[in-house]
Amino acid sequence: MRQYGNPRLLAPNTCNRYNASPMTEQSQFTLPVRVYYEDTDAAGVVYYANYFRFFERCRSEWVRSLGYDQRQLAREHDIVFVVRGVSADYLKPARLDDLLSVHLSVVDVGRARATLSQRVLRENELLVDGTVRLVCVSAANMKPKSIPDWLRAQLEPRS
Amino acid sequence: MRQYGNPRLLAPNTCNRYNASPMTEQSQFTLPVRVYYEDTDAAGVVYYANYFRFFERCRSEWVRSLGYDQRQLAREHDIVFVVRGVSADYLKPARLDDLLSVHLSVVDVGRARATLSQRVLRENELLVDGTVRLVCVSAANMKPKSIPDWLRAQLEPRS
Amino acid sequence: MRQYGNPRLLAPNTCNRYNASPMTEQSQFTLPVRVYYEDTDAAGVVYYANYFRFFERCRSEWVRSLGYDQRQLAREHDIVFVVRGVSADYLKPARLDDLLSVHLSVVDVGRARATLSQRVLRENELLVDGTVRLVCVSAANMKPKSIPDWLRAQLEPRS
Amino acid sequence: MRQYGNPRLLAPNTCNRYNASPMTEQSQFTLPVRVYYEDTDAAGVVYYANYFRFFERCRSEWVRSLGYDQRQLAREHDIVFVVRGVSADYLKPARLDDLLSVHLSVVDVGRARATLSQRVLRENELLVDGTVRLVCVSAANMKPKSIPDWLRAQLEPRS
Repeated sequence: MRQYGNPRLLAPNTCNRYNASPMTEQSQFTLPVRVYYEDTDAAGVVYYANYFRFFERCRSEWVRSLGYDQRQLAREHDIVFVVRGVSADYLKPARLDDLLSVHLSVVDVGRARATLSQRVLRENELLVDGTVRLVCVSAANMKPKSIPDWLRAQLEPRS
Repeated sequence: MRQYGNPRLLAPNTCNRYNASPMTEQSQFTLPVRVYYEDTDAAGVVYYANYFRFFERCRSEWVRSLGYDQRQLAREHDIVFVVRGVSADYLKPARLDDLLSVHLSVVDVGRARATLSQRVLRENELLVDGTVRLVCVSAANMKPKSIPDWLRAQLEPRS
Repeated sequence: MRQYGNPRLLAPNTCNRYNASPMTEQSQFTLPVRVYYEDTDAAGVVYYANYFRFFERCRSEWVRSLGYDQRQLAREHDIVFVVRGVSADYLKPARLDDLLSVHLSVVDVGRARATLSQRVLRENELLVDGTVRLVCVSAANMKPKSIPDWLRAQLEPRS
Repeated sequence: MRQYGNPRLLAPNTCNRYNASPMTEQSQFTLPVRVYYEDTDAAGVVYYANYFRFFERCRSEWVRSLGYDQRQLAREHDIVFVVRGVSADYLKPARLDDLLSVHLSVVDVGRARATLSQRVLRENELLVDGTVRLVCVSAANMKPKSIPDWLRAQLEPRS
């Protein structure tokens, strides 16, 4: 997976960054998302909180692509992933009718937690660059719980 | 509480309607609501679905003003009100930074249901005129259930 | 496009209603919508206002399927459709992870307005039955404006 | 305004963290926010993206408390603040009917940017601890622009 935090790659306008650091890594999952009126605000752009909704749609479809859905993980495996922390850099705004792609790649998996890189692009232009930290908890008592091996194997970053 | 149905204050194209159905009832509850970026869309106005969020904030604060909260009604009295139907006429748009007042009055109460009139005004200008039909259900099985007399007495329209 | 109004497929308590008003028209456009956490509320179901977001996604994709997008209609043709009124009956709740289909059919087209029937189904089960009234306005001054003939031809109900 | 960083008031598992980074600054602005159904999700808690809506309501009311509104800043002073980055740690969940307080304090002000600490508390319990980075841009061309001195004086952290 690419190293995207390299400060040398960061340039004020962010353009160089993505030229200089071609997207050689794999995104482990990508979801197309269309921008509708509901997503925008009076400034004419996507409202900043709504990118986290796009991130979550992407995570949900990723889990589904692995063969699970979240209700089933909770009911049959007593597993819920809760968001423990997020960050996002807003580089360029998305607008009404834009077709975006929302990307997810696993950065790190621990005993009971995982860190994801999540990004929003329009064509090859990076709009939002985010990180989401998840904790695996028991659906029954909401206490942290080890990610089972069969699931961990599917989550791990690809090299 | 103020009388907000004064037809002279309504736009010409809505006058007849309100003359034909004179507003003799009073608004039983009013909640001030400020418009933030989250409420608006790229057309520069409040997104049409979001008025229903304002309606629901108003209903929640109305129930609280009667001395209950919704979690308590569910837990202690096995009562949940669910929305069975809505309608809304959008007369004029609200905009960023507007201070709105959201009004509620009970139109009709049946054995297990109630109909509310809900309106959004900016000063004396009627922006949205809505109706919400609620059904009282059991929190345990979600089946319709009579509104208890002690609660019905508080809900009934004032004349 | 599929016929979704077959009364035999509707739940028993909704049959009479749809027999009384037989669905002879066809759904002119259908959009699949997945239910994510963002759409649900603490009652475990899709929040009532959010069905209007689904309705609008469906209208936007329908316009796109006709060969336009909304920014282009505004910029090149000085046309914006604004919502003048809505109604919805909530028959059954949708839940997290449900795959819904959102339907649209044109009921009526006037000089400067159109009425749409919009529905949400899960498989063959009707969950929400709504109506949306639109007015065609000038993007420049927001005053009502005739729907141009070339567009009206595409909007009209199919028989 | 109250001192909310008192480590004794924080839950045990968050103490060390705040001891390590002592909160000597005061909260410059606090907004009470009630949790409604619209804010929650099917997990029974406030949806993670919605805390950013609460943050923005707080910023908007803070600007208003300084004597401005955002439309006026744009129109009369050609100033818009855009969000360049955010982060949030989710420590404990908020639930339906909770009365929260949303806090804002200025951490740092640069030529054309400002960093805010934003927090959500329920009574003395810290639920969400966030940071928002703003850039001041021209409303006309959206390019970065120096924060005028008269405004900077009002933004600066209080010691």
